[in-house]
Amino acid sequence: MYRDLSHPLETTTVYPGDPSVEIAPHATHEVDGYRVSHLELGSHSGTHVDAPCHTEPDGRSLDSFPIETFAFDALLVDCRGKGARDAVECDDLPEPTEDDLLVFRTGWDTRWGTDAYFDHPYLTSDAAAWCADRGYHVAIDALSVDPTPAENARDDEPEGVPAHHELLGDDRLIVENLTDLDGLPERFTLYAFPFSVGGVDGAPVRAVAEFQGGEDALVSID
Amino acid sequence: MYRDLSHPLETTTVYPGDPSVEIAPHATHEVDGYRVSHLELGSHSGTHVDAPCHTEPDGRSLDSFPIETFAFDALLVDCRGKGARDAVECDDLPEPTEDDLLVFRTGWDTRWGTDAYFDHPYLTSDAAAWCADRGYHVAIDALSVDPTPAENARDDEPEGVPAHHELLGDDRLIVENLTDLDGLPERFTLYAFPFSVGGVDGAPVRAVAEFQGGEDALVSID
Repeated sequence: MYRDLSHPLETTTVYPGDPSVEIAPHATHEVDGYRVSHLELGSHSGTHVDAPCHTEPDGRSLDSFPIETFAFDALLVDCRGKGARDAVECDDLPEPTEDDLLVFRTGWDTRWGTDAYFDHPYLTSDAAAWCADRGYHVAIDALSVDPTPAENARDDEPEGVPAHHELLGDDRLIVENLTDLDGLPERFTLYAFPFSVGGVDGAPVRAVAEFQGGEDALVSID
Repeated sequence: MYRDLSHPLETTTVYPGDPSVEIAPHATHEVDGYRVSHLELGSHSGTHVDAPCHTEPDGRSLDSFPIETFAFDALLVDCRGKGARDAVECDDLPEPTEDDLLVFRTGWDTRWGTDAYFDHPYLTSDAAAWCADRGYHVAIDALSVDPTPAENARDDEPEGVPAHHELLGDDRLIVENLTDLDGLPERFTLYAFPFSVGGVDGAPVRAVAEFQGGEDALVSID
Protein backbone atom coordinates (compact mmCIF):
# COMPACT_ATOMS: atom_id res chain seq x y z
CA MET A 1 0.00 0.00 0.00
CA TYR A 2 0.97 3.62 -0.48
CA ARG A 3 1.01 6.55 1.91
CA ASP A 4 1.58 10.24 1.21
CA LEU A 5 4.37 11.66 3.42
CA SER A 6 4.17 15.23 2.05
CA HIS A 7 2.96 18.55 3.42
CA PRO A 8 0.62 20.49 1.08
CA LEU A 9 2.69 23.19 -0.62
CA GLU A 10 0.21 25.98 -0.02
CA THR A 11 0.66 25.57 3.74
CA THR A 12 4.43 25.71 3.47
CA THR A 13 6.65 26.81 6.31
CA VAL A 14 9.60 28.17 4.34
CA TYR A 15 13.20 28.24 5.50
CA PRO A 16 14.24 31.76 6.57
CA GLY A 17 15.15 33.75 3.43
CA ASP A 18 13.60 31.30 0.96
CA PRO A 19 10.92 32.37 -1.56
CA SER A 20 7.33 32.08 -0.42
CA VAL A 21 4.92 29.78 -2.25
CA GLU A 22 2.34 31.65 -4.35
CA ILE A 23 -0.49 29.91 -6.16
CA ALA A 24 -2.82 32.06 -8.27
CA PRO A 25 -5.37 31.52 -11.03
CA HIS A 26 -3.96 31.95 -14.54
CA ALA A 27 -7.06 30.89 -16.48
CA THR A 28 -10.54 30.41 -15.01
CA HIS A 29 -13.76 28.68 -16.03
CA GLU A 30 -15.61 31.99 -15.78
CA VAL A 31 -13.32 33.92 -18.14
CA ASP A 32 -11.48 31.29 -20.20
CA GLY A 33 -13.64 28.18 -20.01
CA TYR A 34 -10.89 26.12 -18.30
CA ARG A 35 -8.64 26.33 -15.25
CA VAL A 36 -4.85 26.69 -15.17
CA SER A 37 -2.91 27.85 -12.11
CA HIS A 38 0.26 29.91 -11.88
CA LEU A 39 2.78 28.64 -9.32
CA GLU A 40 5.74 30.45 -7.80
CA LEU A 41 7.97 28.69 -5.33
CA GLY A 42 11.52 28.07 -4.17
CA SER A 43 13.39 24.89 -5.02
CA HIS A 44 13.36 23.90 -1.32
CA SER A 45 9.65 24.52 -0.64
CA GLY A 46 7.59 22.07 1.35
CA THR A 47 8.62 18.43 1.32
CA HIS A 48 11.70 18.50 -0.90
CA VAL A 49 15.04 16.99 -1.88
CA ASP A 50 18.39 18.79 -1.50
CA ALA A 51 21.00 18.18 -4.21
CA PRO A 52 24.71 18.37 -3.36
CA CYS A 53 25.03 21.71 -5.22
CA HIS A 54 22.64 23.28 -2.65
CA THR A 55 25.56 23.77 -0.24
CA GLU A 56 28.59 22.56 -2.26
CA PRO A 57 29.83 24.84 -5.07
CA ASP A 58 31.15 21.80 -6.96
CA GLY A 59 28.27 19.53 -5.98
CA ARG A 60 26.03 17.64 -8.38
CA SER A 61 22.56 18.80 -9.34
CA LEU A 62 19.45 16.65 -8.96
CA ASP A 63 19.22 15.77 -12.65
CA SER A 64 22.63 14.12 -12.58
CA PHE A 65 21.36 11.29 -10.36
CA PRO A 66 19.86 8.22 -12.06
CA ILE A 67 16.10 8.11 -11.63
CA GLU A 68 16.23 4.90 -9.56
CA THR A 69 18.14 6.84 -6.88
CA PHE A 70 14.85 8.45 -5.88
CA ALA A 71 13.17 5.11 -5.10
CA PHE A 72 14.89 4.71 -1.76
CA ASP A 73 15.14 1.62 0.47
CA ALA A 74 14.23 3.47 3.66
CA LEU A 75 14.90 2.57 7.29
CA LEU A 76 13.13 4.51 10.06
CA VAL A 77 15.21 5.81 12.96
CA ASP A 78 13.09 6.80 15.96
CA CYS A 79 14.38 10.05 17.46
CA ARG A 80 11.17 11.18 19.13
CA GLY A 81 12.94 11.35 22.47
CA LYS A 82 14.75 14.48 21.30
CA GLY A 83 13.41 17.85 22.43
CA ALA A 84 13.59 21.33 20.95
CA ARG A 85 17.00 22.04 19.39
CA ASP A 86 18.42 18.75 20.71
CA ALA A 87 21.15 17.00 18.74
CA VAL A 88 20.84 13.54 17.20
CA GLU A 89 24.24 12.03 17.91
CA CYS A 90 26.20 8.95 16.83
CA ASP A 91 24.87 7.04 19.86
CA ASP A 92 21.36 7.45 18.45
CA LEU A 93 22.19 5.74 15.16
CA PRO A 94 21.26 2.16 14.21
CA GLU A 95 23.56 -0.72 13.34
CA PRO A 96 24.62 -0.34 9.70
CA THR A 97 22.25 -2.03 7.21
CA GLU A 98 21.91 -2.54 3.48
CA ASP A 99 19.25 0.19 3.20
CA ASP A 100 20.17 3.36 1.35
CA LEU A 101 18.15 6.00 3.23
CA LEU A 102 17.85 6.69 6.95
CA VAL A 103 14.58 8.45 7.83
CA PHE A 104 14.98 10.31 11.10
CA ARG A 105 11.62 10.51 12.82
CA THR A 106 11.64 13.41 15.27
CA GLY A 107 7.87 13.90 15.48
CA TRP A 108 8.46 17.58 14.69
CA ASP A 109 6.07 17.47 11.71
CA THR A 110 3.12 18.06 14.05
CA ARG A 111 4.47 21.58 14.66
CA TRP A 112 4.32 22.45 10.92
CA GLY A 113 2.96 25.97 10.44
CA THR A 114 3.90 27.13 13.96
CA ASP A 115 6.95 28.98 15.29
CA ALA A 116 7.94 25.83 17.15
CA TYR A 117 8.61 24.12 13.80
CA PHE A 118 11.89 26.04 13.57
CA ASP A 119 13.14 24.56 16.86
CA HIS A 120 13.52 21.02 15.49
CA PRO A 121 16.20 18.53 16.52
CA TYR A 122 19.21 18.26 14.18
CA LEU A 123 22.08 15.91 13.32
CA THR A 124 25.56 16.56 14.67
CA SER A 125 28.23 16.70 12.02
CA ASP A 126 29.61 13.40 13.37
CA ALA A 127 26.21 11.73 12.99
CA ALA A 128 25.86 13.11 9.46
CA ALA A 129 29.40 11.95 8.59
CA TRP A 130 28.57 8.46 9.95
CA CYS A 131 25.58 8.31 7.56
CA ALA A 132 27.57 9.57 4.58
CA ASP A 133 30.49 7.22 5.28
CA ARG A 134 28.10 4.25 5.18
CA GLY A 135 26.50 5.38 1.94
CA TYR A 136 23.18 6.51 3.40
CA HIS A 137 21.06 9.29 2.04
CA VAL A 138 19.16 11.05 4.87
CA ALA A 139 15.54 12.13 5.34
CA ILE A 140 13.88 13.92 8.26
CA ASP A 141 10.37 15.02 9.30
CA ALA A 142 11.67 18.50 10.11
CA LEU A 143 12.81 21.68 8.34
CA SER A 144 16.52 20.84 8.19
CA VAL A 145 19.21 18.39 9.29
CA ASP A 146 21.04 21.39 10.77
CA PRO A 147 19.69 23.76 13.43
CA THR A 148 17.62 26.53 11.86
CA PRO A 149 18.96 29.98 12.83
CA ALA A 150 16.76 31.70 15.42
CA GLU A 151 17.04 34.13 18.29
CA ASN A 152 16.54 31.30 20.77
CA ALA A 153 19.48 29.25 19.40
CA ARG A 154 21.40 27.40 22.12
CA ASP A 155 25.05 28.02 22.86
CA ASP A 156 26.01 24.43 22.05
CA GLU A 157 24.58 24.52 18.52
CA PRO A 158 26.98 24.39 15.59
CA GLU A 159 27.22 27.39 13.28
CA GLY A 160 26.41 27.11 9.59
CA VAL A 161 25.22 23.86 8.06
CA PRO A 162 27.85 21.23 8.94
CA ALA A 163 25.47 18.26 8.59
CA HIS A 164 24.55 19.45 5.10
CA HIS A 165 28.25 19.71 4.22
CA GLU A 166 28.99 16.20 5.53
CA LEU A 167 26.14 14.67 3.53
CA LEU A 168 25.99 16.79 0.37
CA GLY A 169 29.79 17.08 0.30
CA ASP A 170 29.86 13.27 0.09
CA ASP A 171 27.36 13.18 -2.80
CA ARG A 172 24.43 12.12 -0.62
CA LEU A 173 20.88 13.51 -0.88
CA ILE A 174 18.72 14.99 1.89
CA VAL A 175 14.90 14.80 2.01
CA GLU A 176 13.36 17.38 4.36
CA ASN A 177 9.88 18.17 5.71
CA LEU A 178 8.45 14.65 5.63
CA THR A 179 5.25 14.08 7.58
CA ASP A 180 2.84 11.32 8.66
CA LEU A 181 5.44 8.68 9.55
CA ASP A 182 3.22 7.38 12.36
CA GLY A 183 2.86 3.62 12.31
CA LEU A 184 4.93 3.00 9.18
CA PRO A 185 6.84 -0.28 9.21
CA GLU A 186 10.53 0.07 10.01
CA ARG A 187 11.40 -0.54 6.33
CA PHE A 188 9.59 0.80 3.28
CA THR A 189 10.23 2.15 -0.20
CA LEU A 190 10.26 5.94 -0.32
CA TYR A 191 9.50 7.46 -3.73
CA ALA A 192 10.69 11.07 -3.92
CA PHE A 193 11.00 11.78 -7.65
CA PRO A 194 11.91 15.47 -8.13
CA PHE A 195 10.52 17.21 -11.18
CA SER A 196 13.02 17.34 -13.99
CA VAL A 197 14.98 20.61 -14.17
CA GLY A 198 18.52 20.79 -15.52
CA GLY A 199 21.17 21.88 -13.01
CA VAL A 200 18.78 22.42 -10.13
CA ASP A 201 19.83 22.52 -6.46
CA GLY A 202 16.66 20.97 -5.03
CA ALA A 203 13.00 20.37 -5.78
CA PRO A 204 9.70 19.93 -4.01
CA VAL A 205 8.51 16.31 -4.23
CA ARG A 206 5.46 14.25 -3.48
CA ALA A 207 7.14 11.87 -1.03
CA VAL A 208 5.27 8.55 -1.00
CA ALA A 209 5.88 5.42 1.06
CA GLU A 210 5.12 1.98 -0.38
CA PHE A 211 5.06 -1.04 1.90
CA GLN A 212 3.68 -4.56 1.86
CA GLY A 213 0.26 -5.43 3.19
CA GLY A 214 -2.77 -3.38 4.09
CA GLU A 215 -3.58 -1.42 7.20
CA ASP A 216 -2.60 -4.45 9.30
CA ALA A 217 1.01 -3.94 8.15
CA LEU A 218 1.10 -0.74 10.16
CA VAL A 219 2.92 -1.02 13.44
CA SER A 220 2.32 1.26 16.36
CA ILE A 221 5.59 2.53 17.74
CA ASP A 222 3.92 5.09 19.98
CA MET B 1 14.07 -1.23 -13.18
CA TYR B 2 13.03 2.38 -13.48
CA ARG B 3 12.94 4.75 -16.42
CA ASP B 4 12.28 8.48 -16.50
CA LEU B 5 9.48 9.36 -18.94
CA SER B 6 9.60 13.15 -18.34
CA HIS B 7 10.75 16.12 -20.38
CA PRO B 8 13.03 18.55 -18.50
CA LEU B 9 10.89 21.51 -17.40
CA GLU B 10 13.32 24.16 -18.57
CA THR B 11 12.90 22.97 -22.16
CA THR B 12 9.14 23.08 -21.91
CA THR B 13 6.90 23.51 -24.92
CA VAL B 14 3.91 25.19 -23.27
CA TYR B 15 0.32 24.95 -24.42
CA PRO B 16 -0.79 28.15 -26.19
CA GLY B 17 -1.74 30.73 -23.54
CA ASP B 18 -0.15 28.88 -20.61
CA PRO B 19 2.49 30.52 -18.37
CA SER B 20 6.09 30.06 -19.43
CA VAL B 21 8.54 28.24 -17.16
CA GLU B 22 11.05 30.56 -15.50
CA ILE B 23 13.93 29.30 -13.38
CA ALA B 24 16.21 31.89 -11.77
CA PRO B 25 18.77 32.00 -8.97
CA HIS B 26 17.34 33.12 -5.62
CA ALA B 27 20.47 32.55 -3.51
CA THR B 28 23.96 31.85 -4.86
CA HIS B 29 27.20 30.41 -3.52
CA GLU B 30 28.99 33.63 -4.46
CA VAL B 31 26.67 35.97 -2.54
CA ASP B 32 24.89 33.81 0.02
CA GLY B 33 27.10 30.75 0.48
CA TYR B 34 24.40 28.35 -0.75
CA ARG B 35 22.13 27.85 -3.78
CA VAL B 36 18.35 28.12 -3.91
CA SER B 37 16.38 28.57 -7.14
CA HIS B 38 13.16 30.48 -7.79
CA LEU B 39 10.68 28.66 -10.01
CA GLU B 40 7.68 30.05 -11.87
CA LEU B 41 5.49 27.76 -13.92
CA GLY B 42 1.97 26.83 -14.92
CA SER B 43 0.16 23.87 -13.42
CA HIS B 44 0.22 22.13 -16.85
CA SER B 45 3.91 22.67 -17.64
CA GLY B 46 6.04 19.90 -19.09
CA THR B 47 5.08 16.32 -18.29
CA HIS B 48 2.00 16.80 -16.13
CA VAL B 49 -1.32 15.45 -14.85
CA ASP B 50 -4.71 17.06 -15.59
CA ALA B 51 -7.32 16.98 -12.82
CA PRO B 52 -11.03 16.91 -13.68
CA CYS B 53 -11.41 20.56 -12.57
CA HIS B 54 -9.05 21.61 -15.40
CA THR B 55 -11.96 21.53 -17.84
CA GLU B 56 -14.98 20.70 -15.63
CA PRO B 57 -16.29 23.49 -13.36
CA ASP B 58 -17.54 20.89 -10.87
CA GLY B 59 -14.60 18.51 -11.34
CA ARG B 60 -12.35 17.21 -8.62
CA SER B 61 -8.90 18.62 -7.92
CA LEU B 62 -5.74 16.50 -7.85
CA ASP B 63 -5.49 16.41 -4.06
CA SER B 64 -8.89 14.72 -3.78
CA PHE B 65 -7.53 11.52 -5.37
CA PRO B 66 -5.99 8.89 -3.07
CA ILE B 67 -2.22 8.79 -3.46
CA GLU B 68 -2.26 5.21 -4.82
CA THR B 69 -4.22 6.50 -7.84
CA PHE B 70 -0.95 7.94 -9.16
CA ALA B 71 0.79 4.55 -9.22
CA PHE B 72 -0.92 3.43 -12.41
CA ASP B 73 -1.10 -0.06 -13.95
CA ALA B 74 -0.22 1.09 -17.45
CA LEU B 75 -0.86 -0.55 -20.82
CA LEU B 76 0.88 0.79 -23.94
CA VAL B 77 -1.23 1.42 -27.06
CA ASP B 78 0.88 1.81 -30.19
CA CYS B 79 -0.46 4.65 -32.34
CA ARG B 80 2.71 5.47 -34.20
CA GLY B 81 0.96 4.91 -37.50
CA LYS B 82 -0.90 8.18 -37.00
CA GLY B 83 0.36 11.27 -38.79
CA ALA B 84 0.10 14.99 -38.10
CA ARG B 85 -3.33 15.93 -36.73
CA ASP B 86 -4.68 12.42 -37.32
CA ALA B 87 -7.38 11.05 -35.01
CA VAL B 88 -7.00 7.98 -32.79
CA GLU B 89 -10.38 6.28 -33.17
CA CYS B 90 -12.27 3.48 -31.48
CA ASP B 91 -10.90 1.01 -34.04
CA ASP B 92 -7.40 1.76 -32.75
CA LEU B 93 -8.21 0.76 -29.17
CA PRO B 94 -7.21 -2.53 -27.52
CA GLU B 95 -9.45 -5.21 -26.04
CA PRO B 96 -10.53 -4.10 -22.55
CA THR B 97 -8.13 -5.18 -19.78
CA GLU B 98 -7.78 -4.90 -16.01
CA ASP B 99 -5.18 -2.12 -16.33
CA ASP B 100 -6.15 1.36 -15.16
CA LEU B 101 -4.19 3.58 -17.55
CA LEU B 102 -3.90 3.48 -21.34
CA VAL B 103 -0.66 5.08 -22.57
CA PHE B 104 -1.08 6.23 -26.16
CA ARG B 105 2.26 6.12 -27.91
CA THR B 106 2.20 8.44 -30.91
CA GLY B 107 5.96 8.97 -31.20
CA TRP B 108 5.28 12.71 -31.19
CA ASP B 109 7.67 13.28 -28.26
CA THR B 110 10.60 13.43 -30.68
CA ARG B 111 9.18 16.72 -32.01
CA TRP B 112 9.33 18.35 -28.52
CA GLY B 113 10.62 21.91 -28.79
CA THR B 114 9.65 22.31 -32.47
CA ASP B 115 6.57 23.78 -34.15
CA ALA B 116 5.63 20.29 -35.33
CA TYR B 117 4.99 19.30 -31.69
CA PHE B 118 1.68 21.17 -31.85
CA ASP B 119 0.46 19.00 -34.77
CA HIS B 120 0.15 15.82 -32.70
CA PRO B 121 -2.48 13.11 -33.16
CA TYR B 122 -5.47 13.27 -30.81
CA LEU B 123 -8.31 11.09 -29.49
CA THR B 124 -11.78 11.36 -30.96
CA SER B 125 -14.47 12.02 -28.38
CA ASP B 126 -15.77 8.48 -29.02
CA ALA B 127 -12.35 6.99 -28.30
CA ALA B 128 -12.03 9.08 -25.13
CA ALA B 129 -15.55 8.05 -24.04
CA TRP B 130 -14.64 4.39 -24.64
CA CYS B 131 -11.66 4.79 -22.27
CA ALA B 132 -13.68 6.60 -19.62
CA ASP B 133 -16.55 4.10 -19.80
CA ARG B 134 -14.10 1.26 -19.11
CA GLY B 135 -12.53 3.07 -16.16
CA TYR B 136 -9.23 3.94 -17.82
CA HIS B 137 -7.16 7.00 -17.08
CA VAL B 138 -5.29 8.16 -20.20
CA ALA B 139 -1.69 9.19 -20.91
CA ILE B 140 -0.07 10.37 -24.13
CA ASP B 141 3.41 11.29 -25.38
CA ALA B 142 2.04 14.50 -26.90
CA LEU B 143 0.84 17.94 -25.83
CA SER B 144 -2.84 17.10 -25.49
CA VAL B 145 -5.47 14.41 -26.07
CA ASP B 146 -7.38 16.99 -28.13
CA PRO B 147 -6.06 18.80 -31.23
CA THR B 148 -4.05 21.87 -30.27
CA PRO B 149 -5.45 25.02 -31.93
CA ALA B 150 -3.29 26.20 -34.82
CA GLU B 151 -3.61 27.97 -38.13
CA ASN B 152 -3.06 24.71 -39.97
CA ALA B 153 -5.95 22.93 -38.22
CA ARG B 154 -7.82 20.51 -40.48
CA ASP B 155 -11.49 20.91 -41.33
CA ASP B 156 -12.38 17.54 -39.79
CA GLU B 157 -10.95 18.40 -36.35
CA PRO B 158 -13.36 18.83 -33.47
CA GLU B 159 -13.66 22.22 -31.84
CA GLY B 160 -12.86 22.73 -28.17
CA VAL B 161 -11.61 19.89 -26.00
CA PRO B 162 -14.17 17.08 -26.31
CA ALA B 163 -11.74 14.29 -25.34
CA HIS B 164 -10.86 16.22 -22.18
CA HIS B 165 -14.56 16.58 -21.37
CA GLU B 166 -15.23 12.86 -21.92
CA LEU B 167 -12.36 11.83 -19.65
CA LEU B 168 -12.26 14.56 -17.00
CA GLY B 169 -16.05 14.78 -16.98
CA ASP B 170 -16.06 11.11 -16.00
CA ASP B 171 -13.58 11.66 -13.15
CA ARG B 172 -10.61 10.24 -15.06
CA LEU B 173 -7.07 11.71 -15.09
CA ILE B 174 -4.95 12.64 -18.13
CA VAL B 175 -1.13 12.50 -18.20
CA GLU B 176 0.37 14.56 -21.04
CA ASN B 177 3.83 15.13 -22.54
CA LEU B 178 5.33 11.74 -21.72
CA THR B 179 8.55 10.84 -23.52
CA ASP B 180 11.02 7.98 -24.01
CA LEU B 181 8.50 5.16 -24.33
CA ASP B 182 10.74 3.34 -26.80
CA GLY B 183 11.17 -0.32 -25.97
CA LEU B 184 9.11 -0.33 -22.78
CA PRO B 185 7.27 -3.58 -22.12
CA GLU B 186 3.56 -3.48 -22.98
CA ARG B 187 2.69 -3.33 -19.25
CA PHE B 188 4.48 -1.34 -16.53
CA THR B 189 3.79 0.70 -13.42
CA LEU B 190 3.69 4.43 -14.09
CA TYR B 191 4.41 6.64 -11.08
CA ALA B 192 3.15 10.18 -11.64
CA PHE B 193 2.81 11.65 -8.14
CA PRO B 194 1.84 15.33 -8.44
CA PHE B 195 3.16 17.69 -5.81
CA SER B 196 0.67 18.38 -3.08
CA VAL B 197 -1.36 21.56 -3.58
CA GLY B 198 -4.90 21.95 -2.29
CA GLY B 199 -7.57 22.43 -4.96
CA VAL B 200 -5.19 22.42 -7.91
CA ASP B 201 -6.24 21.71 -11.52
CA GLY B 202 -3.02 19.99 -12.59
CA ALA B 203 0.65 19.60 -11.74
CA PRO B 204 3.95 18.87 -13.41
CA VAL B 205 5.21 15.43 -12.43
CA ARG B 206 8.30 13.30 -12.75
CA ALA B 207 6.69 10.43 -14.63
CA VAL B 208 8.63 7.22 -13.97
CA ALA B 209 8.08 3.71 -15.33
CA GLU B 210 8.92 0.68 -13.20
CA PHE B 211 9.04 -2.76 -14.81
CA GLN B 212 10.51 -6.15 -14.04
CA GLY B 213 13.93 -7.21 -15.17
CA GLY B 214 16.91 -5.34 -16.52
CA GLU B 215 17.72 -4.06 -19.97
CA ASP B 216 16.79 -7.47 -21.38
CA ALA B 217 13.16 -6.81 -20.36
CA LEU B 218 13.01 -4.10 -22.99
CA VAL B 219 11.20 -5.08 -26.13
CA SER B 220 11.76 -3.45 -29.45
CA ILE B 221 8.48 -2.56 -31.06
CA ASP B 222 10.09 -0.54 -33.80
